[in-house]
Parts: sequence; structure tokens; C-alpha cells
Amino acid sequence: MQIEVIPYPGVQPTREQVERTIVVMDVLRATSTIVTALDNGATEVIPLSDASEAIVMARRLGEDQCLTGGERGGLPIPGLNLGNSPREYTHEVISGKKLALCTTNGTQAIRWAQPGKKVFIASFLNLPALVAQLLADDGDLLLVCSGRNGGLALEDVYCAGMIVHQLATEITPSKLFQSDSAVLSRIAYQSIKRSGLEKGLFGTDHGKALKELGMDDDVSYCAQVGVIDKVPIYTGGKIILP
Amino acid sequence: MQIEVIPYPGVQPTREQVERTIVVMDVLRATSTIVTALDNGATEVIPLSDASEAIVMARRLGEDQCLTGGERGGLPIPGLNLGNSPREYTHEVISGKKLALCTTNGTQAIRWAQPGKKVFIASFLNLPALVAQLLADDGDLLLVCSGRNGGLALEDVYCAGMIVHQLATEITPSKLFQSDSAVLSRIAYQSIKRSGLEKGLFGTDHGKALKELGMDDDVSYCAQVGVIDKVPIYTGGKIILP
Repeated sequence: MQIEVIPYPGVQPTREQVERTIVVMDVLRATSTIVTALDNGATEVIPLSDASEAIVMARRLGEDQCLTGGERGGLPIPGLNLGNSPREYTHEVISGKKLALCTTNGTQAIRWAQPGKKVFIASFLNLPALVAQLLADDGDLLLVCSGRNGGLALEDVYCAGMIVHQLATEITPSKLFQSDSAVLSRIAYQSIKRSGLEKGLFGTDHGKALKELGMDDDVSYCAQVGVIDKVPIYTGGKIILP
Repeated sequence: MQIEVIPYPGVQPTREQVERTIVVMDVLRATSTIVTALDNGATEVIPLSDASEAIVMARRLGEDQCLTGGERGGLPIPGLNLGNSPREYTHEVISGKKLALCTTNGTQAIRWAQPGKKVFIASFLNLPALVAQLLADDGDLLLVCSGRNGGLALEDVYCAGMIVHQLATEITPSKLFQSDSAVLSRIAYQSIKRSGLEKGLFGTDHGKALKELGMDDDVSYCAQVGVIDKVPIYTGGKIILP
């Protein structure tokens, strides 16, 4: 198994990259929100670029069938039903509904992965289930960190690093080929393993920004490992549970 | 002082990025070669995109005045005077000459930084001198890793991390703002500090590739810290000693 990590998406994936299984993560908070919404009964999540796209999509699908959600600068967008806090997406709110979601980085990174043959959605919440799936599939991997403001976001690198770390503890070393970027991600994850993931997330630029916005509880929520055992896939423009 | 690290150059720097002091590094081997050539008496190094540009430049400047050098896939390019091994650039060979240099990643990253107001060339060889200069200048920094094959190269991240680490030991914490990418680079550097830099460089994808090409001695050479006390600048299309 070969593993490469993209610290943040560039112009477009190469042909070699889309041949691999792609795993997209935006720990704070888009992919944590998506995993939570689907676990709480959302029927599908449609990742979109901006609020107007989300509103148009909800009208097309029927506003009783499809909710809109998203954020800009971490804050809810006026005119959408919901923000980007995973804790908003309870069973009562989202069960049986579709969700048209637009966020600053995460939904863009997912759309970047659209040419991929197999695209999974990752967060700490569903990380053990995802790793079990990747071990079962045994294909080459491209782990895509969504990043933030065109640069890298440490929380996503930690998540990629935890995936690499867990795979590396299960796979015979001679069968695992880690690119420099995978090695770097694992080093990053190992550096916070002792002090704890939650503390690690609060130490990132994004964690600090969410704390300043009073969204501490979101950061703590997203730092939970393995509380959801589902692995969403992105296929045909929608994120669903297989 | 704010520090941001670019793991590998993207499309073009933003307006905010070119306002900062830019430091470019391609440890294996372009910037190690440039620093060595200038220390051994080269009068200037002109970073170019490909071999034909280098040959045209040397003809224009006079082939007795200007040597050509570079690599593709780590190997010397037929038709150029020299390769990209820093150990080729001895005083006897390069003193008093200009050098038209084209490499796969390093010279491209330097050209990426061209809009920068102040651009320094870094390697482990001249790292302490560079850090002293950055401390004296006390401006915001953009550390640019050249990367490899469009992705990140761990040896450049180690170099950026060592710069961040040395600055962080000299600057009052409340006056130093490290972006997530700067924090990550420092974590990477700290992870190899104990086992040693040379071993760290041989562990990277690029270090392994150079070893396979029989260029072990280049890797060992580039792992030396502070053997050259000069800090080249890139200005007006040329790299010179100020």
C-alpha cells in the first residue's frame, strides 16, 4: 500500500492521484458535520461551493426534503437553514432530509476529489471505521487535507497522520510505502498523542479561531475518536452511506 | 515576527506573501549548490527553468565568463558544463565566473519568489548566518520549501523547521507568531534532532533517490550546518552575495 498526503488541494488532481482511493478530511468542521449528519439520518449531503448554489439546490429538490447549511469565516450564512456546527445536525433536525452544504474549505476539497474512483469522508469521529475499511480494501491511498485559507491546517494533518499511524501499526512495513508527506503527517500526529488530541486541536490556528468565536464545544466534539462507525462515500456529486 | 512556511510553491505568491521577507530552500541540492558556488567565488547565479535557457544565457554573457549547470531527475544534463552536485563547484572551477543554473525544483521555487521585496537563499550550510540576518532584520517571514515532483520534500521542511526552531529560541514568545505550517515544520525538525540531520536526510524520499544514484556524498555534504557564513540574496533575476 502506498500512502501520499496532500496538505491542501492544489489546482486539480493528477491522473495518477485519481486512480488511488481518496480520503478527504476537514476536521474543523465540514467533514465532522457531514459524518454526524449522515449518522443522524440525513439521506445525502451535497457539497457545494457557495450559499446561492445551496439555496438553488434546496429549491430544486424541494425545501421540505432538503435543508441548507454552511459557513463563511466560521459563522452561519444568513438565508441558510443551518450553520457548520456538527452539533446542530441532530436526529430531530436532519433525519430523513437531504443537506445542501457549502463551507469555506471542506466542501471545496471534496469537490476537488470528484474525479476520484473511490472517495471516502474522514474525521476523527469515524476514523477507526475508516481505517478498517482501508485495510479491507488494501488499495493505494491519497489522503487529502482540506487546509484553510489556501494553506495547510494542522488539525487535518493530525487526522491524516493518525490514519497513517493506525495503518502502519497493522501493515507489514515492507508492504507499506509512505511518501514524505505521509511521514510528516505521522510525525505531527505522534507529537500530540501524549498531550491529547483535544488539546492539540485547540492549539491550531483554526482551533484558536473557533474558540474566539465561542465555539469551544465544536472543537471538543470534533476531537472525539471513533464515536461514529460509518464511512460516507462521495459518488455522483453526493455524499451517502454505502 | 510572523512566520509562515509554504510546503511547496503553488501557482503564484499572494500580494501579502510578497510583502514578507522570503527565504527559499532546496536542501537537496539546488540551494546548497548555489550557496557553495557563491562561497567559492562565483560572481552570480542566474536561476533558469531549463537547459536551453541556461545555454542561451551563457552565450549571451560569454561562455568564458559564464558556466552552465543543472540536473533533471538528479542527473547532469548533456550539453551543460556542470551538474547539480555542490561538490563540483570548487574554487578552481567557479571562482570569478557567473553560473546559469537550471534544476527541477529549486530554481523554479526561486523564480516563484521573484516578486518578493527581499529574497534570501537558505540551506543547512549557511543556516546560522541566515538566522542571524533574519533576527537583525526582524521582519515577517515566508519560508518557501521547493518540494519535489509537485509535492513536499521532507528535507526542505526540516530546514524550514530548523530556522523556525532557532528563531523561536531567540525571540520572546509573545512577539513570535507561528502559522500552523511553521509549527508543523518545527515539529518535523525536532523529530530528527536527536538521531541527527544526516540520518534524517538519508531517510527522505529524495535522500534515498540520491543514494540510489550513488550520490551519498552529496547528501552528507548538504547535511552540514553552518560551514558557510554567507547569505545570498536574489534580486533583479540574479543570486549574489550582498
